[in-house]
Amino acid sequence: MTKDFTFRLLARDGAARRGEIATPRGPIRTPAFMPVGTAATVKAMFPETVEATGADIILGNTYHLMLRPGAERVARLGGLHRFMHWEKPILTDSGGYQVMSLSKLRKITEEGVAFQSHIDGSRHMLTPERAVEIQCLLGSDIQMVLDECTPFPATRDEAKRSLDLSMRWAARCKTAFAEMSKPGQALFGIVQGSTYPDLRKESAGALVEIGFPGYAIGGLAVGEGHETMVEMVGITTQFLPEDKPRYLMGVGTPQDLIAAIGQGVDMFDCVMPTRSGRHGQAFTWAGRCNLRNSQYAEDETPLDAESSCPAAQYSRAYLHHLVKSGEMLGAMLLSWANIHFYQELMARARTAIEVGEFDDFSKEMGRRYGDTGPKGSE
Amino acid sequence: MTKDFTFRLLARDGAARRGEIATPRGPIRTPAFMPVGTAATVKAMFPETVEATGADIILGNTYHLMLRPGAERVARLGGLHRFMHWEKPILTDSGGYQVMSLSKLRKITEEGVAFQSHIDGSRHMLTPERAVEIQCLLGSDIQMVLDECTPFPATRDEAKRSLDLSMRWAARCKTAFAEMSKPGQALFGIVQGSTYPDLRKESAGALVEIGFPGYAIGGLAVGEGHETMVEMVGITTQFLPEDKPRYLMGVGTPQDLIAAIGQGVDMFDCVMPTRSGRHGQAFTWAGRCNLRNSQYAEDETPLDAESSCPAAQYSRAYLHHLVKSGEMLGAMLLSWANIHFYQELMARARTAIEVGEFDDFSKEMGRRYGDTGPKGSE
Ligand SMILES: [Zn+2]
Ligand SMILES: [Zn+2]
Repeated sequence: MTKDFTFRLLARDGAARRGEIATPRGPIRTPAFMPVGTAATVKAMFPETVEATGADIILGNTYHLMLRPGAERVARLGGLHRFMHWEKPILTDSGGYQVMSLSKLRKITEEGVAFQSHIDGSRHMLTPERAVEIQCLLGSDIQMVLDECTPFPATRDEAKRSLDLSMRWAARCKTAFAEMSKPGQALFGIVQGSTYPDLRKESAGALVEIGFPGYAIGGLAVGEGHETMVEMVGITTQFLPEDKPRYLMGVGTPQDLIAAIGQGVDMFDCVMPTRSGRHGQAFTWAGRCNLRNSQYAEDETPLDAESSCPAAQYSRAYLHHLVKSGEMLGAMLLSWANIHFYQELMARARTAIEVGEFDDFSKEMGRRYGDTGPKGSE
Repeated sequence: MTKDFTFRLLARDGAARRGEIATPRGPIRTPAFMPVGTAATVKAMFPETVEATGADIILGNTYHLMLRPGAERVARLGGLHRFMHWEKPILTDSGGYQVMSLSKLRKITEEGVAFQSHIDGSRHMLTPERAVEIQCLLGSDIQMVLDECTPFPATRDEAKRSLDLSMRWAARCKTAFAEMSKPGQALFGIVQGSTYPDLRKESAGALVEIGFPGYAIGGLAVGEGHETMVEMVGITTQFLPEDKPRYLMGVGTPQDLIAAIGQGVDMFDCVMPTRSGRHGQAFTWAGRCNLRNSQYAEDETPLDAESSCPAAQYSRAYLHHLVKSGEMLGAMLLSWANIHFYQELMARARTAIEVGEFDDFSKEMGRRYGDTGPKGSE
């Protein structure tokens, strides 16, 4: 296994890319979908099961983990991988997005963000340096710079001011990361700029100037809609280096992912498959399926005969019963089936790119899921 | 595999028995613990995992299943085994106990019990004949007669009146079962009589007179305490035939089980391992363990190094975190570890009886768990 963090492009089909990230904890096949393990667990799933679905990497949330169990505590317990029984790579966000969306009484200054925990009201300060320190304490393989996820909608002035702050923080994160990180770990920059093409270009340029081993696209899937999201992704990727992985944060539906891959994105994360699963919604190769619907009460067919997931072989009638009864097994089976579907979706996308049929695959998915569908959620 | 329901005694150690029930769906090694699958799922567990813990049989609740998804619906879907992906034997209760404890506006007459669903208020009538019909529709391998679980405390008159009604219902159930059941299925009688030794004797005698392939002991673990429970069990088993299995309903703690095995009981069910698991409580070979306790926050030792359960290899610190965070994985791991513990407990009891060391085993468990501990719960 490699000791360094590297990225290789293996194939291209239009703007779509098939690649592989090498890390000391194993390879990440791209395009890659990262299941979200917010509080050191991909909700309702055993880590072995997450791995069996084909996930090469999962995401952990710095905001949640810094509050509970606490970064220093995780470090004392041997790091996040050991703590949660997941030996493959982990990407952590910087905590910034969730500080702004979940915490109380937050105040942004040049120094960082002061906030109160949504759990117990305790006061915390998240600076670029502390965000990197926390991610190093967790032992994260791919870390993210602290940024401000520009709220949507934003005026150009607001977006520009927010972007400038994020770029200054990105530089501070890189300096801190150089001091605190271990070999083989990587820190990604995050492009902001709201829905302003020139600001997206400016942000990408500023980050490339600083220099990162990978670039994330942030501030999307926040209400701008599928079309605008795809447009902004396409504008951003053209200003990012070809030889570095690109990660679209917090996106999204199967349609969102396919469209973004078509714009040159390599990595994704989203709570949608697990959150939907807990609410009785399934992603299948025949489209979405709401198991609460009484039409499934006596439907003996499997959830998704086209899926190779064991959970997808349970009958729709049984899943309907579990969901209606509020049984945990319903959430367990649907989270599993959904994560498996997202992994199969990425596997099929990778194969389609390799054989030069990504456009056909994209159209086929459009027929199955509709071309746009609901927008991605965080 | 056998086509009939039979029971063989393989070994004895004092009053403790090691046996095997043969059924068309596979053998049941006794003493046996049956995990409770109330609403067609052992809560928070995959059926494959339940099987892997060593369970030969699970229990389903007629009351819950008749209300949702409904017995006729389960029958149309191919029966309960197919519906819930469990091919080994299933024992169902009659629904009587839960009608009395969960439903609204219940009224007992000679005919049966009229009640309203706790789910939607719909009106239902459960008679001895309907209780058997429902269990046959579910496809239950071991069915229970409809009885009245005599409330505790009860005067002798109340207990006698209740008992007499239960015995008349038992006879009606046997007649209905003869008409509706399939070869290889069995119907068990249920001994009542509250805490009155002479009534326990009378009830056992009445049931033996009717004749059943197995006998349950009901109306215990309802508040009478461990000592009285064990005493009543011992009094009851001496009036039951040696060559039929004995099932102590709804009991209980590890101490309860060991004590009851010592009085000649062969089968148990209880929600305790799964319910406790959902509330952060673990059963381990070192005793009980409340994972909510902050003493475990940085305890890197596995939950139970003596257990062979994969779930018991997670650190106490991680389980503490999951429980404190309300994460479903905490309930999943602790339910699994607890069911596994109960199965290991039965396996060790079976071995101890085979080698004539049950008394030593019982004393050893007393040292680990205390001699009585909290009383069993339904
Ligand atoms: Zn999302
Ligand atoms: Zn119980």
